[in-house]
Amino acid sequence: MDLATIIGFTCAFLLVIFGISLPNLAAFIDPPSLFIAIGGAVSATVAAFPANKLINSIGVVKNAFFVKKSTPVDIIKQLVSFAEQARREGILALEARALEVKDEFLKTGIQLAVDGTEPELIKDILSTDIAFTELRHEEGAKIFDFLAAMGPSFGMIGTLIGLVLMLGNMTDVESIGPNMAVALITTFYGSLLANAVCLPIVEKLKGYSRREILIKELMLEGIMSLQSGDNPRIVEQKLTAFLEPGLRAAVMKEKGK
Amino acid sequence: MDLATIIGFTCAFLLVIFGISLPNLAAFIDPPSLFIAIGGAVSATVAAFPANKLINSIGVVKNAFFVKKSTPVDIIKQLVSFAEQARREGILALEARALEVKDEFLKTGIQLAVDGTEPELIKDILSTDIAFTELRHEEGAKIFDFLAAMGPSFGMIGTLIGLVLMLGNMTDVESIGPNMAVALITTFYGSLLANAVCLPIVEKLKGYSRREILIKELMLEGIMSLQSGDNPRIVEQKLTAFLEPGLRAAVMKEKGK
Amino acid sequence: MDLATIIGFTCAFLLVIFGISLPNLAAFIDPPSLFIAIGGAVSATVAAFPANKLINSIGVVKNAFFVKKSTPVDIIKQLVSFAEQARREGILALEARALEVKDEFLKTGIQLAVDGTEPELIKDILSTDIAFTELRHEEGAKIFDFLAAMGPSFGMIGTLIGLVLMLGNMTDVESIGPNMAVALITTFYGSLLANAVCLPIVEKLKGYSRREILIKELMLEGIMSLQSGDNPRIVEQKLTAFLEPGLRAAVMKEKGK
Amino acid sequence: MDLATIIGFTCAFLLVIFGISLPNLAAFIDPPSLFIAIGGAVSATVAAFPANKLINSIGVVKNAFFVKKSTPVDIIKQLVSFAEQARREGILALEARALEVKDEFLKTGIQLAVDGTEPELIKDILSTDIAFTELRHEEGAKIFDFLAAMGPSFGMIGTLIGLVLMLGNMTDVESIGPNMAVALITTFYGSLLANAVCLPIVEKLKGYSRREILIKELMLEGIMSLQSGDNPRIVEQKLTAFLEPGLRAAVMKEKGK
Amino acid sequence: MDLATIIGFTCAFLLVIFGISLPNLAAFIDPPSLFIAIGGAVSATVAAFPANKLINSIGVVKNAFFVKKSTPVDIIKQLVSFAEQARREGILALEARALEVKDEFLKTGIQLAVDGTEPELIKDILSTDIAFTELRHEEGAKIFDFLAAMGPSFGMIGTLIGLVLMLGNMTDVESIGPNMAVALITTFYGSLLANAVCLPIVEKLKGYSRREILIKELMLEGIMSLQSGDNPRIVEQKLTAFLEPGLRAAVMKEKGK
Repeated sequence: MDLATIIGFTCAFLLVIFGISLPNLAAFIDPPSLFIAIGGAVSATVAAFPANKLINSIGVVKNAFFVKKSTPVDIIKQLVSFAEQARREGILALEARALEVKDEFLKTGIQLAVDGTEPELIKDILSTDIAFTELRHEEGAKIFDFLAAMGPSFGMIGTLIGLVLMLGNMTDVESIGPNMAVALITTFYGSLLANAVCLPIVEKLKGYSRREILIKELMLEGIMSLQSGDNPRIVEQKLTAFLEPGLRAAVMKEKGK
Repeated sequence: MDLATIIGFTCAFLLVIFGISLPNLAAFIDPPSLFIAIGGAVSATVAAFPANKLINSIGVVKNAFFVKKSTPVDIIKQLVSFAEQARREGILALEARALEVKDEFLKTGIQLAVDGTEPELIKDILSTDIAFTELRHEEGAKIFDFLAAMGPSFGMIGTLIGLVLMLGNMTDVESIGPNMAVALITTFYGSLLANAVCLPIVEKLKGYSRREILIKELMLEGIMSLQSGDNPRIVEQKLTAFLEPGLRAAVMKEKGK
Repeated sequence: MDLATIIGFTCAFLLVIFGISLPNLAAFIDPPSLFIAIGGAVSATVAAFPANKLINSIGVVKNAFFVKKSTPVDIIKQLVSFAEQARREGILALEARALEVKDEFLKTGIQLAVDGTEPELIKDILSTDIAFTELRHEEGAKIFDFLAAMGPSFGMIGTLIGLVLMLGNMTDVESIGPNMAVALITTFYGSLLANAVCLPIVEKLKGYSRREILIKELMLEGIMSLQSGDNPRIVEQKLTAFLEPGLRAAVMKEKGK
Repeated sequence: MDLATIIGFTCAFLLVIFGISLPNLAAFIDPPSLFIAIGGAVSATVAAFPANKLINSIGVVKNAFFVKKSTPVDIIKQLVSFAEQARREGILALEARALEVKDEFLKTGIQLAVDGTEPELIKDILSTDIAFTELRHEEGAKIFDFLAAMGPSFGMIGTLIGLVLMLGNMTDVESIGPNMAVALITTFYGSLLANAVCLPIVEKLKGYSRREILIKELMLEGIMSLQSGDNPRIVEQKLTAFLEPGLRAAVMKEKGK
Repeated sequence: MDLATIIGFTCAFLLVIFGISLPNLAAFIDPPSLFIAIGGAVSATVAAFPANKLINSIGVVKNAFFVKKSTPVDIIKQLVSFAEQARREGILALEARALEVKDEFLKTGIQLAVDGTEPELIKDILSTDIAFTELRHEEGAKIFDFLAAMGPSFGMIGTLIGLVLMLGNMTDVESIGPNMAVALITTFYGSLLANAVCLPIVEKLKGYSRREILIKELMLEGIMSLQSGDNPRIVEQKLTAFLEPGLRAAVMKEKGK
């Protein structure tokens, strides 16, 4: 898991608790408010998405936070080495190496190329795969985006309930303040759910998706180059254009060694 | 109906009622507020869309929630089996099988292919169909989106009415609280309409639409492959690229048996 | 005028008046508030758009609400009958019939086809027409959208004016309530202008525009088919793909008779 | 300057002043509030854009409001007359006439055509010009859009400052009302800046840009037609498709005379 | 650094401080509020983006504010002079000059052209570079955009905490005002972070990115022209179309000398 993420989430919550200050913490724990604000927001989200997407979204989040994927630089080096071997020994020589490839997308692509599938068809199949991967990622992000919108909304619904109950019975002047405090807690929970939990997750998922798609596009470009028997130097040049200048140096440096 | 949906909607409402707590429930039932907030929002929505779209939208919702459509995996298997038969016995052999197909879109497409219609024209006709299906789904979602926007707006209009009436007559100090409570109930109704009813429906409709469109695009790709007499293995490869990795395995596993 | 529209607008206003209840209605009529909220919003809108677009927009609204245009089904039948005649008697036979066509767009298109204009050029001219029609419709909707945004904004400006005046002179405690009530009325007017008038009009205009564009695209497709001498059955198949399944049956049923 | 614009801006301000009523006007003039709300918003905008764009934006606004450009109808007539001359006397005959053309874009285009530049290159050069003109207009509008967003934001910052100062020192109960009134004035200023000044300007600029781009696209289409030696009647037909039906009649009527 | 930027940021803060007035400044310095509003917003942003993007974003901001890049006019003059030399001495003559070019993108492009790489491939490589440069810039802007959204959100969370604590303990009537003042300070901090710091930075980054991309597109167009051996006058004409009319004159004037 990205260290920045752990630090970010931890700090956000510690700072909020620090703002409340420990002795007052009890005033901010109110189960009924929790049920309306968080429970209501989660329920509306459950109603809005099919069950399998909801379950998938947990997997997507887990992937985005925990799985260590190969970097673009690794992929480029691997593809350039494939291009060198294909140049020397013919594309069929890649058949054995394809079996070692762990990434499903890259393996399928190389096998298609080795099988002599037409380039148009390879591009078609792999592009469709990329398009739908993107779609699935967007759907994962959408679930947390929806939850982020529902949080403050159900928070406000809870606050309205609290206010109506309080205003309907103002005989006990003493209790007005504390009742209003309780009414505001649902909005507090809803805001926290949205801003300290869901929106950072949405951003994280989008960044993770962009990275995944970038890597798949890199692989697609590389596979098409392998298929058409491009010069390894050209393959490298084509693929490093995907990288930021800093990483490009990394590819070159390693090669120079 | 998707179990998650039932659970989601039920929980959202139970949690709100729990937040109110049963003995206080009466304080939240106020027919005039209901008329302004919900009635006003529905009226504005009725004014905004043509009558036939409003009626259609009910059908679209019913479809999205209740109709059990074939899954992409089923469709792929069916198309691959058609491809196998077309390979063995010629595309004319599909004429009889097309009659058994229940899906109108798939049936039309296969009949066009069997009739020897030019591939460009088949693609044209089916793509137009997909584009307009998407448009109609968007319009269904738009109606509930509009209602979701009108809910809190008419809720606020109701609250403004309540506040103006209350502020204009503050001689009876006792009644200020309860009057303000009543004023807030329209906002409560409007928020509930938007967040616990309409927005989850909008999301559900969009998901349902994406699924429908995905299936139609699958069928289009499959029909084009049938028409051009593709190898069934290629057809399968092309079509499984539309699926998420988990489902791809499902297609393959079944085949292996 | 669409019955749903009349019912929608009437109900929205009746429900608001019902919420106010007739004896209190006088409290909601305040000409200065009307001048700030509605007058200010309209003035800002007048400043934002050129005079001729503002005048056009009234025409666009009138069209959207009152003009009864031919339905897509009528257009398809007409185009199919043209295709049949062109098949039998040659495309020149359509010259006389083009004169009876009321729709300017369709008439121009058929005359271009009869004159033997190159298909590319016909498509160019008609597509440009469609693109600019869409643009003009969007501009009409934009004016009401802008007005819908200005309504609550000038409503709030009015409320701020009322609050500043009230807060600056709080010696007469009795008058605080009524003064604040008056201050809120501008927001009430602005919200009503936006939600009960402008936003439904915007939606209506957009729906009307989509329908107009759909019909023009239908005509374009049909004219191109006429020009290339397509088989009437193909023309029908191409054009019915634009319709929703229910209406498709309508085209077919009529034909079967 | 468009009369509607003068009337719109004047009315918006007169109505606001009328709402305040002259004897109370002094209560709404508070220089420190003006500095925070308007000064802060302008400062943030200055910080957000490069100096040359800020200066340009003033020119763009001046153009949008004051410069009287030729109408599309004039341009079409001019282009059709060029097409007629080019037909009769060859495209080189336009060399002399190009010098009289005041519009830089049209002049460049005709000179390119006269010089015998390849059509692809002419299209390339002129399209690039159009794309960047659009971009520059968007940037002008963006500056006022940003200012419109900053107005209410710095208004709220000012109100927060006022409230904090007031709440921190509530010993003098008499002064609470007037202090709060002053606090609200910054929000009033910010809202006025956004809604009565900036947003109408943004809309105006966008409309002006669309008109400019439309005229340039007309010219591009006309120049390409000149270059390929199209029949003047065809040129007219192509170009009138850019116009709204009402203006088309204007082109034709004039011709009929 | 752009002078307008320094003036803008300085004025925004001076005006806010002026609004507070120096003797009251202490009332607006409250470390716990600072921790919740700014600390919370920064923490959530840290959680939302990968560590390397967060660090990069600082570099991007530094570039956008401090680095003095060549202007489009300089680049055009350089490319035209390259075109002249390539015309006279052949494209290989550019090999030596490419080494003097400081811009990495331009250098790579010219080297590819000199090496005789196929035009399609050059375009491919350079376009990919442009697309990913744009993506990286967008990601930098996104981080500050996210921070701008988190500022007011954590400001409101802080205010809710303050209000709940205050309302839960209203026995000391004297302290209600000051406590509420403190509660509002978090919202003040959050608004300031968003509007006086982050949003201007976002706008600045977007403008900087557009300028960078424009320059890279200029270079790409120029390199493609060099490669295909275009006439220097054509190169100049193609490239000046990227400029605003004022700058075009600058290119021409210089040449005329």
